Amino acid sequence: MLHHNSVTIADIQAAQKRLFGVANRTPVLTSRTINDRTNSQVFFKCENFQRTGSFKFRGAYNALVQLSPTQQKTGVITHSSGNHAQAIALAGKLLNIPTTIVMPDDAPAVKQIATRGYGAEIILYNRQTTNREELAQNLASDRHLTLIPPYDYPHVIAGQGTTALELIQEVEQLDLVLVCCGGGGLLSGCAIATKALLPNCKIIGVEPALADDATRSFHTKVLHTVTNPDTIADGARTPSLGQITFPLVLQYVDDMVTVSEEAIVRTMFFLWERLKIVVEPTGVLAATALLEDIVIAPGAKIGVIISGGNVDLAQAGRLFHQF
Amino acid sequence: MLHHNSVTIADIQAAQKRLFGVANRTPVLTSRTINDRTNSQVFFKCENFQRTGSFKFRGAYNALVQLSPTQQKTGVITHSSGNHAQAIALAGKLLNIPTTIVMPDDAPAVKQIATRGYGAEIILYNRQTTNREELAQNLASDRHLTLIPPYDYPHVIAGQGTTALELIQEVEQLDLVLVCCGGGGLLSGCAIATKALLPNCKIIGVEPALADDATRSFHTKVLHTVTNPDTIADGARTPSLGQITFPLVLQYVDDMVTVSEEAIVRTMFFLWERLKIVVEPTGVLAATALLEDIVIAPGAKIGVIISGGNVDLAQAGRLFHQF
Repeated sequence: MLHHNSVTIADIQAAQKRLFGVANRTPVLTSRTINDRTNSQVFFKCENFQRTGSFKFRGAYNALVQLSPTQQKTGVITHSSGNHAQAIALAGKLLNIPTTIVMPDDAPAVKQIATRGYGAEIILYNRQTTNREELAQNLASDRHLTLIPPYDYPHVIAGQGTTALELIQEVEQLDLVLVCCGGGGLLSGCAIATKALLPNCKIIGVEPALADDATRSFHTKVLHTVTNPDTIADGARTPSLGQITFPLVLQYVDDMVTVSEEAIVRTMFFLWERLKIVVEPTGVLAATALLEDIVIAPGAKIGVIISGGNVDLAQAGRLFHQF
Repeated sequence: MLHHNSVTIADIQAAQKRLFGVANRTPVLTSRTINDRTNSQVFFKCENFQRTGSFKFRGAYNALVQLSPTQQKTGVITHSSGNHAQAIALAGKLLNIPTTIVMPDDAPAVKQIATRGYGAEIILYNRQTTNREELAQNLASDRHLTLIPPYDYPHVIAGQGTTALELIQEVEQLDLVLVCCGGGGLLSGCAIATKALLPNCKIIGVEPALADDATRSFHTKVLHTVTNPDTIADGARTPSLGQITFPLVLQYVDDMVTVSEEAIVRTMFFLWERLKIVVEPTGVLAATALLEDIVIAPGAKIGVIISGGNVDLAQAGRLFHQF
């Protein structure tokens, strides 16, 4: 069991050592077109090239590798909109830990298939009628499985923070880092790493306007929730920040902004067409804030986290018919 | 004017110096999934991340930068299925050289738009009724423009060869390099660079089966042509190897193979979904030969040139509906 809920730069640095040679050190891409358009220097940290197609592998592996031998032998369970599921499944496969995944029955087919492909047991539920946290808790109790939550868990947060740590190690100086926000694991982890290494660098979290719980929570300092938000950014459909991530976001993040669904699709199209990378809707949230002029920072060196690339290609193609 | 038609490693190394800081040094991506599936180590040289979205910028810039001041002032003309057009247009813009592009009227809209966006004048023609070489030659004579052919031109071939040069500089040892083949500029340039630096490394060219002119020419040592081949790989619709590229391919390439249209689409889907990169049909030809087991080299270190990523995203989405 974990005895503290704080996450420090030392935890993130330790996570980086654990992930060395296991997680991909993902490339940082730049684009002259985007630099010209934003009048700034933009560095895209491309976690769509991470193992399992998103940053989630970092936190999942960092959590599973630290379980006790008994916990590892019995196995783990988690609830996830998809990317955390794949990440836990692969980390479990690599560490020989049995994995059970509670997943909404409307999760993209590509994510369900990939998760099963890693050998996980999948239990589907209906998002309208079932509370996934309760379902996972009950299954964990019944089967004596260790629950690894998708974001509200220090080892997961520390793992996700290695994304910003790597970006800063490569780019060295940054004035601003933009990070998408669902449950706040990636955002708080990256904020802790960034503030420790670059105290003057601003951190801004980005949410879909249709799932703006964290933005409202940040500005009011009271935890807000959303219920089944109908955003295309499925990784940001989480009901709220967590008990651990909320105070971390309040402490380390400088601002939160939201973006429209139309802006998310426009940015997806732009990044696919111009950067030639496959990015999922949640994965473009941070870039959307910049490319749609919601965050303007002329002359700045800006880090943008591209969080993942797991998307149904045919579905994305249909979205792009309008362009 | 050019006084010789040979291209040497020295020409390619000189081209690399000219391109330094102008062309992108494109990333080399690897995939554990693909290594496992092919039982080899595969290094994807990703020219879809090159400026203008394909390797063509290398040859175009290397050609234009070496023109005389008079030629540069009057301007250049070329015929192209699209990527060479964008490349000439951008190189012209960077060097302040007027550019005129003769382009088939069924070239992907994204390529026409991008070419106009770089300030080129576009002259469209019908592929069924017009010989593009003649049209371009006539326009060049009438307007005193210098014709920069898409592949059969030593400075273009030398520029394209920097793709393999960079790959070898990064990976150092390779047993096999797979390169797509349209008119043979990229293939011959990469073959010259590879054989100079790694004499024991094999070079295999890959064509669509529907446009197998170079494969037949290679095996019979007599130049074969195809007429308006209906392959999805629009960069390989060229009628034949050139007067310069044909002997270079015969001299430096070890083998030529072909791939089916279905295999091209399967490989596109696979690379988009698993590598998270946007690659055009022609861009996956080399990868297709490997992933469809047409070329098998267990235990080998294999370089695969991903030549470009300029594709209509909605159209690609429709192709992917079957998966």
